[in-house]
Amino acid sequence: MSRSAGRAPSLSRRRFLGAAGAVGALGATAAVGTGTLLAPPAGAADAAGRGSAVVPFHGEHQAGIVTPVQDRLLFASFDVITDDRSELVDLLQAWTVASRRMTLGQPVGKVNDDQDLPPDDTGEAMGLGPQSLTVTFGFGTSLFTRPGDPFRIAAKKPDALFPMPLFARDEIQPDRSEGDLAVQSCANDPTVAFHAIRDLARIGRGVVALRWSQLGFGRTSLTDEEQVTPRNLMGFKDGTNNVVVEETHDLDRHVWVGPSDDPAWMRGGSYLVTRRIRMMLEIWDRSTLADQEQTIGRNKDEGAPLGGRLEHDLVDLQAKQSGDLVIPELAHIRLAAPQENGGARILRRGFSFTDGIDPVSNQLDAGLFFIAYQRDPRTGFLPVQENLARDALNEYIRHDSSGTFACPPGVTTDGFIGDTLFR
Amino acid sequence: MSRSAGRAPSLSRRRFLGAAGAVGALGATAAVGTGTLLAPPAGAADAAGRGSAVVPFHGEHQAGIVTPVQDRLLFASFDVITDDRSELVDLLQAWTVASRRMTLGQPVGKVNDDQDLPPDDTGEAMGLGPQSLTVTFGFGTSLFTRPGDPFRIAAKKPDALFPMPLFARDEIQPDRSEGDLAVQSCANDPTVAFHAIRDLARIGRGVVALRWSQLGFGRTSLTDEEQVTPRNLMGFKDGTNNVVVEETHDLDRHVWVGPSDDPAWMRGGSYLVTRRIRMMLEIWDRSTLADQEQTIGRNKDEGAPLGGRLEHDLVDLQAKQSGDLVIPELAHIRLAAPQENGGARILRRGFSFTDGIDPVSNQLDAGLFFIAYQRDPRTGFLPVQENLARDALNEYIRHDSSGTFACPPGVTTDGFIGDTLFR
Repeated sequence: MSRSAGRAPSLSRRRFLGAAGAVGALGATAAVGTGTLLAPPAGAADAAGRGSAVVPFHGEHQAGIVTPVQDRLLFASFDVITDDRSELVDLLQAWTVASRRMTLGQPVGKVNDDQDLPPDDTGEAMGLGPQSLTVTFGFGTSLFTRPGDPFRIAAKKPDALFPMPLFARDEIQPDRSEGDLAVQSCANDPTVAFHAIRDLARIGRGVVALRWSQLGFGRTSLTDEEQVTPRNLMGFKDGTNNVVVEETHDLDRHVWVGPSDDPAWMRGGSYLVTRRIRMMLEIWDRSTLADQEQTIGRNKDEGAPLGGRLEHDLVDLQAKQSGDLVIPELAHIRLAAPQENGGARILRRGFSFTDGIDPVSNQLDAGLFFIAYQRDPRTGFLPVQENLARDALNEYIRHDSSGTFACPPGVTTDGFIGDTLFR
Repeated sequence: MSRSAGRAPSLSRRRFLGAAGAVGALGATAAVGTGTLLAPPAGAADAAGRGSAVVPFHGEHQAGIVTPVQDRLLFASFDVITDDRSELVDLLQAWTVASRRMTLGQPVGKVNDDQDLPPDDTGEAMGLGPQSLTVTFGFGTSLFTRPGDPFRIAAKKPDALFPMPLFARDEIQPDRSEGDLAVQSCANDPTVAFHAIRDLARIGRGVVALRWSQLGFGRTSLTDEEQVTPRNLMGFKDGTNNVVVEETHDLDRHVWVGPSDDPAWMRGGSYLVTRRIRMMLEIWDRSTLADQEQTIGRNKDEGAPLGGRLEHDLVDLQAKQSGDLVIPELAHIRLAAPQENGGARILRRGFSFTDGIDPVSNQLDAGLFFIAYQRDPRTGFLPVQENLARDALNEYIRHDSSGTFACPPGVTTDGFIGDTLFR
């Protein structure tokens, strides 16, 4: 349906209808196993098997939130450059069709059918398979507060949606922060993750413009099943006490917008907070092992909380030795702990990044692209981050990008992304 | 051996000697299977098997040149910030020891042995395995032409080593080009590739400073054995007629500096040319399939040369249809073909990249980081690139970084990187 996107300034109604026509047939395929990772048969979890794994696009919730973290990320934020509501809605519908196809490993459209038109798919992901691709969408505050309310959604802005305030030591760069629309593309292959953003941007030409993007990488999983805590670029295991997918009760309490939460259109959705956290690696690398472990509150090798022996040992925040707290007062895991934050828990899904050399310091510009999903940032990221103002870790990190997005619920087989907001 | 690197301004003699003491034991391990990819047993080529694959560090040639292309790249160029020859030599020796250990999947040093010192390894790659890591080193022109010749190597500068001249349409940015030392880190895991550069930079503190770096990604191989031609970000298969590892005769003729070539210290080495080639993806995506295929000279789906049916069909540059050349006069594969370049062949080992958004165009800053190895750039990259001045592809690409480096031969188990130059 993006056949003529190359020449047309925006998506036409005709093209959207053409796209929607494909929903019936595809919907059936995509609906199989909704909500479950379609893993290859046991014993076939080899590299080829990983390539063919499909995460269903349709379901109660958007994929890419509680989906086991894939190896690669390309995150993109877009500005909407039209004031025409129907163009925006058409785009969301076209993005729905394209995303469903790509998550099945299919090209967005025909690649090789007509010599006289631009191909409907840019082609770089051909033959790579679905690679567990998920494409997750969110709406930024600025879409709701746009002057004149051209999209007629101002009254529907969730109270929970607002750009994070500046925290102590923040060095947020506005041009790589926030945005009207966010797309999180995750896959086990970097070309597949790239392809999704590139083709969505292409389809959106004239309606949206890329604002900023972030490439990320995680651990190359050994198998889909293995849930080993990955290490961040400080060399520490990161995510030990994350909410895990099996904890349905915690997901309902902390991650998903609940069935009686307002606004109604967000029920089943989640709020996304992104932070680009640069690590001052040279300074970190020059600090002693003791400094590093006291800063984090865990030992480096095993990832055990200080005073413990194994990674998953209970974090004892009260423990003292010779009168001193075993986990120091300003250690990161203390200040981030739910019991220090009114029970707040957030689902983290961060990726490492490295983006060349900082021209000022001549050091690698590298760190953690923090991604967190929560039921409400006011009881999730916000109080936790305020508490982290005293974090000993702050000496070694700088936050330079921030994003906050309302991610609507999942898409039904006859729906489109954001239809609860726009229908 | 980098125990006190955190506080000391440069590597001390003592630390180098400590490092060298480890060579005996490690050398034996690393020498097993020299020159061959230590692949996991047949049938075990799953993801875990890929993680454990070791590419031997030692051998006649440096690893990472004819090694089957890994999935991930971090390329770094360094400026040498000392004029002390012995500090530079010490660093090359320390880098040798560190690289050998990392390619075996071992940390550079102890991570957890002394609370009062910075860890000898930064730790982020712990548990990820060797991941076919290769670390390949090259010397830039500026190292030989440095005022005062502090390293006493000016007389040894190869005639074949010089920065590439500006070609038509080049938009080379000096601050992301060339450099005194180049390190190409390739692995099947991005954290492993990152870790190598990060720890080498850390070890080199006070002796070298990072100048520029480039992250790259390729196809996630399905198995080590499979040699499917990957697609570049234009959606075309790229590398169909590359020199392949099995062509020993062609490697000796086109890639390796020969046994009677001068200077003697480069025999068994190779010259590296890097080019950051940005693709104007928006313009490309808006051109018709016919335009794209005529520009490249191949069809997009199969990768067959125009007039052929299959990818590996012979490229017939003479074929005509209705009086017109089937492969157009300015098609990329015609102008790049050996028969149009005096038989010149180069070994390409490029990676795709995406580095955020170009602030001018609001497009993805993405393309191909071109890496080529050759026996002599004067009969390799240089004439080919001159011929490509007329390339139809130029409408869609911009070269914005260039690097040329002399990569010395492989390291013997009692040698160090560049010892043929510095000993």
